[in-house]
Amino acid sequence: MKISIERAALLKAMAQAQSVVERRNTIPILANVLIEAEGDSVSFRATDLDIEVVERAPAQVERAGATTVSAVMLHEIARKLPDGALVSLTADAVAGRLTVQAGRSHFNLATLPREDFPVMASSEYTANFSANAGTLKRLFEKSKFAISTEETRYYLNGVFMHVATGEDGPVLRCVATDGHRLARIDAPLPAGAEDMPGVIVPRKTVGELRKLLDDDEAQIAVSVSETKIRFATPHITLTSKVIDGTFPDYARVIPMGNSRRLEVDAAEFAKAVDRVATVSSERARAVKLSLDEDRLVLSVNAPDAGAAEEELAVAYGDERLEIGFNAKYLLEIASQVDRENAVFLFNSSGDPTLMREGNDTSAVYVVMPMRV
Amino acid sequence: MKISIERAALLKAMAQAQSVVERRNTIPILANVLIEAEGDSVSFRATDLDIEVVERAPAQVERAGATTVSAVMLHEIARKLPDGALVSLTADAVAGRLTVQAGRSHFNLATLPREDFPVMASSEYTANFSANAGTLKRLFEKSKFAISTEETRYYLNGVFMHVATGEDGPVLRCVATDGHRLARIDAPLPAGAEDMPGVIVPRKTVGELRKLLDDDEAQIAVSVSETKIRFATPHITLTSKVIDGTFPDYARVIPMGNSRRLEVDAAEFAKAVDRVATVSSERARAVKLSLDEDRLVLSVNAPDAGAAEEELAVAYGDERLEIGFNAKYLLEIASQVDRENAVFLFNSSGDPTLMREGNDTSAVYVVMPMRV
Repeated sequence: MKISIERAALLKAMAQAQSVVERRNTIPILANVLIEAEGDSVSFRATDLDIEVVERAPAQVERAGATTVSAVMLHEIARKLPDGALVSLTADAVAGRLTVQAGRSHFNLATLPREDFPVMASSEYTANFSANAGTLKRLFEKSKFAISTEETRYYLNGVFMHVATGEDGPVLRCVATDGHRLARIDAPLPAGAEDMPGVIVPRKTVGELRKLLDDDEAQIAVSVSETKIRFATPHITLTSKVIDGTFPDYARVIPMGNSRRLEVDAAEFAKAVDRVATVSSERARAVKLSLDEDRLVLSVNAPDAGAAEEELAVAYGDERLEIGFNAKYLLEIASQVDRENAVFLFNSSGDPTLMREGNDTSAVYVVMPMRV
Repeated sequence: MKISIERAALLKAMAQAQSVVERRNTIPILANVLIEAEGDSVSFRATDLDIEVVERAPAQVERAGATTVSAVMLHEIARKLPDGALVSLTADAVAGRLTVQAGRSHFNLATLPREDFPVMASSEYTANFSANAGTLKRLFEKSKFAISTEETRYYLNGVFMHVATGEDGPVLRCVATDGHRLARIDAPLPAGAEDMPGVIVPRKTVGELRKLLDDDEAQIAVSVSETKIRFATPHITLTSKVIDGTFPDYARVIPMGNSRRLEVDAAEFAKAVDRVATVSSERARAVKLSLDEDRLVLSVNAPDAGAAEEELAVAYGDERLEIGFNAKYLLEIASQVDRENAVFLFNSSGDPTLMREGNDTSAVYVVMPMRV
């Protein structure tokens, strides 16, 4: 293999590759990126056995071929080379080395045989559809904060993407929950997704996916099977195993009859929660919301350190209510609101509370109360 | 005590105070800041028993008095309050509480009695002089990277500030070394500093001092005794114990007869060292410098991972030389050079090497070679 590639293209491809590679590997080849050159392009493939990313970049291929080399090292080299450099990669299969050369810099890196690289088996996909990058970004970015980190509840360690029935018909829906809070985000169902099986997309995949979705207008080809999901642009393909488990019946957690309505400026609310939470050194300290006509008092009481209280002008017309929440959870859901006021719907101080943006039901959050 | 203070002034004072306070304290009051209000100003005092910082800020004092409260918490509150807020602090000695109030935010914090706060004893200072903030910043900032972190060599855990004889007469000199590299920075001796005892200024003090020296043109009042050093502006006083030990005779480490002169663009040199060091995963891997007429080849050889080599056009007129250095040390001294080319003076591959900026001898660095 002998190719020339622009430093910027190499850096972009390697940034995605080194991010998939796990830092601590017992299997040496999993630290490597598989570089394959043919025609007028080169592909960079990295995997952790659960996720595989392939990035294609244009290159001048003088001699087709393939090799594998440390992903972190090649990324570091690309990062440190001067902007605008032309980088040549030359594999010497006999010596087992890859030469990286740019300007007066010259590197000679250890390689492992391409045959040993675990390429993910291709699947039969049940559903193939195209979705807007902006739509996918919203579905995953607004739900991922609620993903559970409890390893024993592995079926909650991802975002459940599935077809559901929304208020106006079928939707593509992402749900995540850790048992304390839940996020349910809907988007119009893309054509071709009707028969998609519901899949739990792992946390790491959601993180890697973020980088594919930079350009809101781009079209992403999505393929789904019972065991795998694939997101592809003309340049990058991200394939991931999905979590082998059953996502719980989340619908029964979402309160339908909550009628006590509080409307509040989300940014002001978040800042006030953040301020009153200052006096509590413990992370899980509850913030108490005391509601009265058009008046919200947030308070925290930490007997050892002190107490804090802040009043906000709000829209609330129901009877008096006192309810407590984990400060971190309140902050996280309030920071999801970006367009309108946050609307909270309460029942009693012991029941789950619903939060949404204005009257928009395409993004709904549920948070469990805490005793205060 | 009852005062009103602008949020910006409170934040600035508390930023310095909370930085001095140690995060893990076995003595509760050391986590607190002592707030003393009198006349038309308020002072905020924080200490870790080795360093004491007092910051004075203008305030409207309605009732003079003093109390102590958690430095981290008061800093966090000031940080989170909206810009432009007027903050009132009211101490209730009977309840043992401090009320912090701004707009609709209301905090009630636990206090500890002012009598329990350890105020640093005042000293007799042997020398008092005034120095330019920019001058002091250069002395400490350019030497601190060489401070040793070895606790057993406690006398190297700081910067040795003393009066010495430079090429053009007496100088104020800062020296730091960890046995592998050394920095020696000189400045013209300020009037009044002639009889100053040499003192070892601890690492943490050097770090805290940085924040006092923001304005290059400010005049700093420096006071030195055998046991303490004090830096003061009209608003902040930083007092620190000095390290009770003897700084080694560094002069004999500085090579005088090195005659092989290499001149190189410091930024280009640093980038090249950084690039070739990429192939070595071990931090202490040596970079080999191979010098020939007007030509420098940097190389690293890590048998497991690979090899790297880079050539630089330099000014060198002596005979061939090969010499190895710790890559990190080379990077650190090269990054001290900001105005001119870096000039290296070598003797043999086993001898310490001297580095300076151009022909300026007011900043001199020594680095020990490594076998390659």
